[in-house]
Formats: sequence, C-alpha cells, structure tokens
Amino acid sequence: SVSAVLPAGGIGERLGGATPKQFCAVQGRPLVSYAVRAMERISWISDIIVVVSPENIETMKTIIEKYGHKRVTVVEAGITRHRSIFNGLKVFAENEFSSRLLQKPEVVIIHDAVRPFVEEDIVSKVVMAAKEHGAAGAIRPLVSTVIASAADGCLDHSLERARYRASEMPQAFLFDIIYEAYQQCTDYDLDYGTECLHLALKYCKTNAKLVEGTADLWKVTYKRDLYAAESIIKDNLSQQVCVITNVNETHAQIGFLLPESLKSQIKVEAISISLSKNDGHLQNIFSGQCYNFVCVN
Amino acid sequence: SVSAVLPAGGIGERLGGATPKQFCAVQGRPLVSYAVRAMERISWISDIIVVVSPENIETMKTIIEKYGHKRVTVVEAGITRHRSIFNGLKVFAENEFSSRLLQKPEVVIIHDAVRPFVEEDIVSKVVMAAKEHGAAGAIRPLVSTVIASAADGCLDHSLERARYRASEMPQAFLFDIIYEAYQQCTDYDLDYGTECLHLALKYCKTNAKLVEGTADLWKVTYKRDLYAAESIIKDNLSQQVCVITNVNETHAQIGFLLPESLKSQIKVEAISISLSKNDGHLQNIFSGQCYNFVCVN
Repeated sequence: SVSAVLPAGGIGERLGGATPKQFCAVQGRPLVSYAVRAMERISWISDIIVVVSPENIETMKTIIEKYGHKRVTVVEAGITRHRSIFNGLKVFAENEFSSRLLQKPEVVIIHDAVRPFVEEDIVSKVVMAAKEHGAAGAIRPLVSTVIASAADGCLDHSLERARYRASEMPQAFLFDIIYEAYQQCTDYDLDYGTECLHLALKYCKTNAKLVEGTADLWKVTYKRDLYAAESIIKDNLSQQVCVITNVNETHAQIGFLLPESLKSQIKVEAISISLSKNDGHLQNIFSGQCYNFVCVN
Repeated sequence: SVSAVLPAGGIGERLGGATPKQFCAVQGRPLVSYAVRAMERISWISDIIVVVSPENIETMKTIIEKYGHKRVTVVEAGITRHRSIFNGLKVFAENEFSSRLLQKPEVVIIHDAVRPFVEEDIVSKVVMAAKEHGAAGAIRPLVSTVIASAADGCLDHSLERARYRASEMPQAFLFDIIYEAYQQCTDYDLDYGTECLHLALKYCKTNAKLVEGTADLWKVTYKRDLYAAESIIKDNLSQQVCVITNVNETHAQIGFLLPESLKSQIKVEAISISLSKNDGHLQNIFSGQCYNFVCVN
C-alpha cells in the first residue's frame, strides 16, 4: 500500500506576495489543488496527507470541498519543512494529529504542493525504486553551475556541473525507514535541513536511488514560475475535452463511447451527471478551467 | 572603458524546439534582442559583441537592423560555450574574426543572450567589483538541494544548501585577466567547461567577487521559461507609455514635457518622429510590443 504526504506549510517568502504560493490561483484554481489532483488521479495511492499551517487549515478544507478532492486528510504544519513532513507521517503511526489513525502504508510518497505537473509514470518509478532501495527521489540536471563562496564573499571553488544533480520531488520511502529517520532526527536537522533523502542516509544508512525526472517536475518558487504554470495549464486544458452527459441510459452510453474514441487524440474526462440538478455543483468542479465541453443531451 | 560579450551560439537542445531559444520570439521579438537592448540602454558600455553560430549570422544581422540595435558586432561562435566567448574576446585583441579591431576595454562584461531582464544596477555592481577584484559574477540562492550521485545511481551525499550558490550572469572581468585565462586554457576546459569564473581562478589565480543578484537574472532554459518571459514582458510593457510626437516645434515640446511628468509613475519612452513619413519604420521598431501609445499631434 502507498500513501502520499504533501507539505504545504510554506509561507512563500520568495514569491514576494501576501498569499503563500501553494494557495495562489492559477487559472482560477489554487496551485495546491493541482498537486492534490495529480496524486488523486493515481488510483493506487490510498491516502493523501496535506500539511498546512494552522492559519490555512480552513482555506485548505474549503479547497478540498470546492474541487471535490477525495482521500485527503489535512494535518497541521510544524515550523519548518521537516517538522511539517514529520507531522504528516505521524497520522499513520500516532494519534497526535488526527482523530482516526490512518492505515500505515508500506511506501510513502513525499511531494511538494507547489509542483503541479507530476505524472503517474515518474511517481510509479520512484515508488518502485523506494520499494527496492528503501528510499528514492527524482533528480534533474543542474541549470546553473554551483559555486562555494569563501568567507570574504569571493569564489572559493566551482563544482563540476556534470557530477551533481538537483534533487527534486517526488521522493518515496519505505514508511518504516523515513519514520525512523524522523524519530532519530536532531533538532538541528529538523530546523535547518530540507532534504529527506539526506535524513534517510544519515539516520538509516539508506542510500536513495536517484531517478531522472522530466522537466515538468519543477517547483513553483518565484512569480515567474506562476506565470509559467498558468501558461502550461492553459495549454494543457485547451487540449482536453470534457464530455458531459445527462444520466439517462441511452445518452450515458453515448457519453462513454465518445471519450473512448477521442482518447487516442486528446486527453478526455468523462463525466456523467444530471445537468439540470447539479448546475451549481458542476460549476464549482470546473471553475477556472477552460475545458472544451461536449454536451451529449 | 567597458564592453560586453553575449554568447548566443547555443542550439537550445533543452528547449526541445527547432529554433534555438535565443531566437525564439517573445511578444513578437527574439529573446536575444531583449538582452542586446538591456546592454544597449547602458550608456557606458561601448561595444556589444554577439557571438552566434555560422548558420545564424544572417538572422542576427536582420534582428540588429529590424530593431535598430547600435554598437553591436556579430562574431562567429565556436563549437562550445567557452570557445564562443573566446572568439568574442578576440575582436578586441586579434584580427581573426573582425575586419576592424575594436578598442580593447578595461573591463569586459559577459552576459547570456537568454537572460533578457538584466538591470543597469546589477551590471554596474558586477563591473565595479571586477575592476577591484579582477573578476566578479552575479549569484543567486539555490532553488533545489544539490546532490552528488555514486556510480550505482544512488545518493552519495547532499550539499548543505546554505553554503552554495548558483552562479548566474552577468559576470565581468578585467579584460587582460579573462583573455589571458582563455589563452592559457586547455582544450579540455574549452570543450567541457562552462564557468568563466572558474577559468579566471584556475589560470590567473583570481578569486572572483560574488555579487548577490535579483530574481530576474534567471536564464531562459525550458519552454516554461519562455512562457514566463512572455508574461513578464507583457506586464512590463503594460506599465510603459510611449509618447510619439510629430516633429513640429510646438508639438515636440509637448512631447518632451509629457514623458517627464509621467516618469514618476511609469516607465516612459519618448520618441519624436514624423509619423506621416515613417510609419513603416515605426512599425518595425515597435513590432510585437504592446505599448500604451500616447500620440501628441
């Protein structure tokens, strides 16, 4: 069994805005909702834990309701990234943060709420690698050369770019390994560290398997990244067709045949719903999305 | 005296398109033209050397003419980034790549053609630091943790993010230092290296001064970066007003007073031109730009 933890407790200081970036609207929908949806679409992920700061718990619950997210549990963030992830993991092992204890997964995925474009393929690869190696994470080539500065603010040395990689998300771990690592973790690491793979190595002697990821794994960090996300989502949606059928036997059948025949060319979502009854609800589900609707009535 | 070299010989393999990214149109104007313009607007930069691959020399010359760029010399790129920059520097010291030898600058700026948003302030800081230290470069905090992988594709170690920086552009050097470094440079470094600061350190024992840059120094690398550049340029331009006056004494005066009075609120470019005669030329200058025009006629 596999579950996922999405740390979303950041305050977005690098974005320079008042709204933490995970709650910024991209095509009318908060960024975190895209990341949740990406996980939710993967049928073999049981629980999705979203870790948000206390002041955003209500916001998150509203988002879950508005976009109809399922299998999601909201957990209160700690004051640092590692403390937040640890809180997220605790719902599978302790009763501290949740009234009901969730079933402990064999493998837990850790993915950022601000990486909206993760595909099932890479998640699957990372999970399989974690099953075999105990830990695994997506990596990408470095975009810039990395340098070390000396105390006087001058160049000490530059790293050979080809030997290093950027550590990205998703990452995955055998639950027992990452939970053990967090339990052993010093306060210093909990407060100043950021890298889960490092904790698995340091506290559990587990060398994570590194999996080459695709370019779309990038993290929304700056305002320009929000612009980019907006354009990518617009591009993707314009290639999607949503088929809406009235739940009437004959029409429902057409509604299921149509998406099947379109699937080879474009992404299709099929929704059978009684339009007359649920207009308001429907509007919520699709708010801010520019699907091409095909109504079969 | 200060001049600039803009390597633009890349073939854009990371972008996944046929057009090298420096020639991709952003709001109708090639990316390289924004970088050239950014340098051109700095009055104390004498010559701007743009280094492009042989097959793009004509394209580059067309861009220079179309957008009215001044002080630009086009030089043929080498097969790697370092070889291209070296070619660019040679026009100040040898007759190999240019019919006329340009005046050797005291300081040379190196800036990427795919970083369209560089401001005079950071260029000035880097140039001053280069004058004092022999070499200087803009840096930014790392966005992702950097890791080293072992031969088996597993994590070897992760770097402490706070101790390292991403090396960005612009960089600047005393001309004699960087030219000496390139002359001493081994073929291996010319073919596989990417970092100019590294060459100054290795061959001239010059520890570059590192200057904290702003977030807008980022490099257009992936398609998402083109989307971001597009949105940023759209945003900037919508805050600009271009005042066009007919060159008639009275109106020209109004034309000069108006931009002055607007400058405190928004960016203003004043252009006095005889509209009736130069419509075609004007269209070229502004093609693809969504200025708010204020015509005083």
